[in-house]
Amino acid sequence: MSETIREKTEGRVSYHDSVEEMLVRIRADGMSNVFDRYAAMEKIRCKFCLEGLSCQQCSNGPCRLNLKGAQDKGVCGIGPDAMAMRKLLLQNIMGAGTYSHHAYEAFRTLRATGEGKTPFQIKDVNKLRWLCEKLGIASDQDTNRLAVQLADLLNTQMNIGADEPNLMVETFAPKKRIPVWRNLNIYPAGTVHEEQNCVAGCLTNVDGNHVSLALKALRLGLATIYNSQIGLEMVQDILFGTPAPHEVNVDLGIMDPDYVNIVFNGHQPWAGALTIEKARDPQVQQRARAAGAKGLHVVGSIETGQELLQRFAVDDVFTGLTGNWLAIEPLLATGTVDVLAMEENCSPPAIDMYAEKYQVTLAAISTIIDLPGLRHKIPYNPSQVNAMSERLIDLALENFKKRRTSVTPQVPRHTQKAIAGFSTEAVLGALGDKLDPLVDVIAAGKIKGVVALANCSTLRNGPQDWNTVNLTRRLIQKDILVVAGGCGNHALEVAGLCSLDAVNQAGPGLSEVCRALKIPPVLSFGTCTDTGRISMLVTALADHLDVDIPQLPIAVTAPEWMEQKATIDGVFAVAYGAYTHLSPTPFVTGAPQLVKLLTEDVEGLTGGKIALGDDPEEVAGNIEAHILAKRKGLGLK
Amino acid sequence: MSETIREKTEGRVSYHDSVEEMLVRIRADGMSNVFDRYAAMEKIRCKFCLEGLSCQQCSNGPCRLNLKGAQDKGVCGIGPDAMAMRKLLLQNIMGAGTYSHHAYEAFRTLRATGEGKTPFQIKDVNKLRWLCEKLGIASDQDTNRLAVQLADLLNTQMNIGADEPNLMVETFAPKKRIPVWRNLNIYPAGTVHEEQNCVAGCLTNVDGNHVSLALKALRLGLATIYNSQIGLEMVQDILFGTPAPHEVNVDLGIMDPDYVNIVFNGHQPWAGALTIEKARDPQVQQRARAAGAKGLHVVGSIETGQELLQRFAVDDVFTGLTGNWLAIEPLLATGTVDVLAMEENCSPPAIDMYAEKYQVTLAAISTIIDLPGLRHKIPYNPSQVNAMSERLIDLALENFKKRRTSVTPQVPRHTQKAIAGFSTEAVLGALGDKLDPLVDVIAAGKIKGVVALANCSTLRNGPQDWNTVNLTRRLIQKDILVVAGGCGNHALEVAGLCSLDAVNQAGPGLSEVCRALKIPPVLSFGTCTDTGRISMLVTALADHLDVDIPQLPIAVTAPEWMEQKATIDGVFAVAYGAYTHLSPTPFVTGAPQLVKLLTEDVEGLTGGKIALGDDPEEVAGNIEAHILAKRKGLGLK
Repeated sequence: MSETIREKTEGRVSYHDSVEEMLVRIRADGMSNVFDRYAAMEKIRCKFCLEGLSCQQCSNGPCRLNLKGAQDKGVCGIGPDAMAMRKLLLQNIMGAGTYSHHAYEAFRTLRATGEGKTPFQIKDVNKLRWLCEKLGIASDQDTNRLAVQLADLLNTQMNIGADEPNLMVETFAPKKRIPVWRNLNIYPAGTVHEEQNCVAGCLTNVDGNHVSLALKALRLGLATIYNSQIGLEMVQDILFGTPAPHEVNVDLGIMDPDYVNIVFNGHQPWAGALTIEKARDPQVQQRARAAGAKGLHVVGSIETGQELLQRFAVDDVFTGLTGNWLAIEPLLATGTVDVLAMEENCSPPAIDMYAEKYQVTLAAISTIIDLPGLRHKIPYNPSQVNAMSERLIDLALENFKKRRTSVTPQVPRHTQKAIAGFSTEAVLGALGDKLDPLVDVIAAGKIKGVVALANCSTLRNGPQDWNTVNLTRRLIQKDILVVAGGCGNHALEVAGLCSLDAVNQAGPGLSEVCRALKIPPVLSFGTCTDTGRISMLVTALADHLDVDIPQLPIAVTAPEWMEQKATIDGVFAVAYGAYTHLSPTPFVTGAPQLVKLLTEDVEGLTGGKIALGDDPEEVAGNIEAHILAKRKGLGLK
Repeated sequence: MSETIREKTEGRVSYHDSVEEMLVRIRADGMSNVFDRYAAMEKIRCKFCLEGLSCQQCSNGPCRLNLKGAQDKGVCGIGPDAMAMRKLLLQNIMGAGTYSHHAYEAFRTLRATGEGKTPFQIKDVNKLRWLCEKLGIASDQDTNRLAVQLADLLNTQMNIGADEPNLMVETFAPKKRIPVWRNLNIYPAGTVHEEQNCVAGCLTNVDGNHVSLALKALRLGLATIYNSQIGLEMVQDILFGTPAPHEVNVDLGIMDPDYVNIVFNGHQPWAGALTIEKARDPQVQQRARAAGAKGLHVVGSIETGQELLQRFAVDDVFTGLTGNWLAIEPLLATGTVDVLAMEENCSPPAIDMYAEKYQVTLAAISTIIDLPGLRHKIPYNPSQVNAMSERLIDLALENFKKRRTSVTPQVPRHTQKAIAGFSTEAVLGALGDKLDPLVDVIAAGKIKGVVALANCSTLRNGPQDWNTVNLTRRLIQKDILVVAGGCGNHALEVAGLCSLDAVNQAGPGLSEVCRALKIPPVLSFGTCTDTGRISMLVTALADHLDVDIPQLPIAVTAPEWMEQKATIDGVFAVAYGAYTHLSPTPFVTGAPQLVKLLTEDVEGLTGGKIALGDDPEEVAGNIEAHILAKRKGLGLK
């Protein structure tokens, strides 16, 4: 698939042949599916909801506004701009809440590991010491004691109130940004504190001003990245190793029906990482063979898959990544999955019928996941993760016996190579531990600029991943390096743009750099949770050059945002000072002052702004123009 | 007004003549107002939103479901029951978040007071020591040190994770409830932790099971009451005194245009309490007279008003309570308000036009409040509350001079007496510090049972406060004692049912008890935040009788819930084991399994359930039947 880039949608529902192929089976089997549900919903959309002009919060509602009529306020008196922004803020809170739920689990896992209560080890001791030193913990202590102290500090920092010093922001934010945030009163407290303030601000009759609501969102975005994401990413590196580039396999073709297949889906690596380790034990493989299988495979789906992919070698036990969230129903329809273990979004709610039809055992392995009809709930607790992993293996072995006698497997013959595992450390390593070579190639115009792509996958602006792939292709053609995270990253991996072959599709300058460094033109930087990690690289660049973020020739794009983590990442990017492209257009178009604030006025505040647009050609042109303007500002050609 | 109870709505928008009278002026002045906006919105309601069958969360939406057609799932696959319950859970999170925002401010105010950084004093030292003892803090220490330690403990308890002991639940929950909650897995962590789990559970593709979402709500409800509300109420008692019954004045007639009037609106007492104290200083009154006024009045509006009302004597400085949230626009239209100082809900978003028309200075005195066009923002910080109060006085004096020359005041001639300030301690005090006299009158059938009424005021089920007043009247006629909190309590105070005169409207048994104890048949127990306080009385009764809550002849009603604090109070009541009447019907009617869960099946889990109904006669009958059944269960006639 990496050879040809599809320019036309041609009546497709997905960029990927594997998904298209499975949809034929799904439809033949009469299964409800996300693609057909989307098509049906297109016909009955609510215009008020699309424009952000509906509210269902209180018993005086539900309200909807018609600005052309007399209905320009809700019953309480709220206007269109605050109504739409309040809904957007609520989405942001959900995203922030989910990231901080992930961080909470990371911090307590690190703590329990330091206390010897988990089967995990401190894998990256250097990173542990480095982070302790940065945060003021005396690093000349026993590793396990450091782990406990660091876990406590990070958890405290996630929860600090407005009166306590924000060590994470002071340590990790760009030096020139901090006064900007203080002036705007968006310098954050801990994520959890900001969530609480924001959620209280969303109550009926509390904040009726769209500007104030937007500032709350910006502050929450900063807290999310600095006080939750960066800590949790570093903790995962400490426990499982800092990502380094290596070749991996992706797409649905990695599924082998003859193996017992345990698929991990969600965002958190705990049980998946342990199960890979366990499955490498010959005794476990022997149990699988005794059950009639060739062995046992661990497979990654969406972000959990990417978490594993960026840190673990793909081999005869861990076989790679299947794809992003829109590929979940197609994956289940292959009739090859024995256990789908889910611990966070995206675990779509109607897959119980797939589990029944294609003999899959569904298991929720977090404290928050549930589905109709789910029988196996194993809430995550660090000290119980070993038992959790054992139970998943048992469930998978049981399921295999049933599956082999009841389901005919059908696996698309599509497997793609990709280079996964980039990180700030890996990039610096490739550059000889200094940023000057990167600055030099940017200054020389070989790389015009850098775009961070972080998002989901949606059907709103075309087939699955079509917008993501086509925009990225145009950016690399323009000698713009793309650094990718999230489900959009999986899209690019599956589409072949994270492979070394893709260098041929890059412009001449970028190609030259990629060939010299033996890197693809799209750097797979992990998950949506790695938005903070990506920012660390950009922050290092800004501080190195002694400039502020809005001066850099960079941009952010979320060409297929779908859910609420994407919206908080996007809001962070605006606060961070980045030109931030979003597609599809959020539900704000009925709110004229809000649209103006987000797409124009905010630039005068943070230096960042939201850019809209659903056409890859046009969007790529706009991003290039922005990058060229910033180059000019820095005195570069 | 206490003499006649209006049975008919007669084309009215409010139960209260004062509000009706002001609406004539508001309409004559061509002002947009909540009553007319409601009437207009009634004509264009969205049926999908009303039934809970719409979702605007993700970019694959907005979705709406039509169960009669083929549209029984959202694009993601979510069904009607989970879609509606997720929205209800989001409302609950907003309520919990706002209560915990209030609690955060209370705890840091107590801490700062202990450190000598505020002008406040520890007013109820006994309560401070009592609470410290209950929570395991050595109480033989200096008062200020105790205050700091208690504040830290309460704040920690609000934030504890799932692995830490919940001291607040263990200390304050009914003894027989704790194993029930553990069995259902709804025994809570700290409120903030539960909020975060719930908000993460609301993300797209996380929890698609309405039962699981409902259990999250129940757990959040318990956390809210035990880990936020009870602590914050006790802290307010410690700082400003435990409420004790005393006579007060209510309704819009308390406004005097010849005075400089500072009105405090919201839920938090800090600046209001301090300003009352300041205004009792003759020098401040002298400044008001120098500005041409007769003096300076401090006035309470909605819950802040009630917080002040239940603890401060009404006199020639603090003049009482104007009414609940639907009376805010009418209050401003009197042309008597110099400053409306707002620190939490309900601060309606379209009152800027009232401020302009009737010369009111609006001021936000919290970290979360804002309105379009608001010029005076003074974020609350305990150490700055003195300056805040001074500033409000300055603003009011300035405003008075403009108001007197530009606005003709119009004040309705309606003032009502009420007895405010009941609390568990006050009730016990009246009973000779033991519960047996209460048990005796219940056992004897003089009081058939107790109903806790806690809610807002809405237009959905009739004119403002019509349902609240008419239901309450029927309950007391049936010898059921009503204990009231929230905007519903203000409704009853203004309608005269919290006065000693109202004893005439009670049934014979209740009348006899009220006359003997010199109490009204409706006990004003404070605000919606006092839901926890009310539960303390019920818990004391259950533990005293060694029975569980569902065995007691009690019920909860929210006959006019409007916003999201009411929904979390209601959810708590269900988890607590209470028969919980809600009107209007929440947006769940399109979700058949959810309706069955909330109104039937949950009784088999917690012993509580939700009862619906908008007709006071029918609802009172159902509540009486429930109470009689519970009496029978206890072997009472």
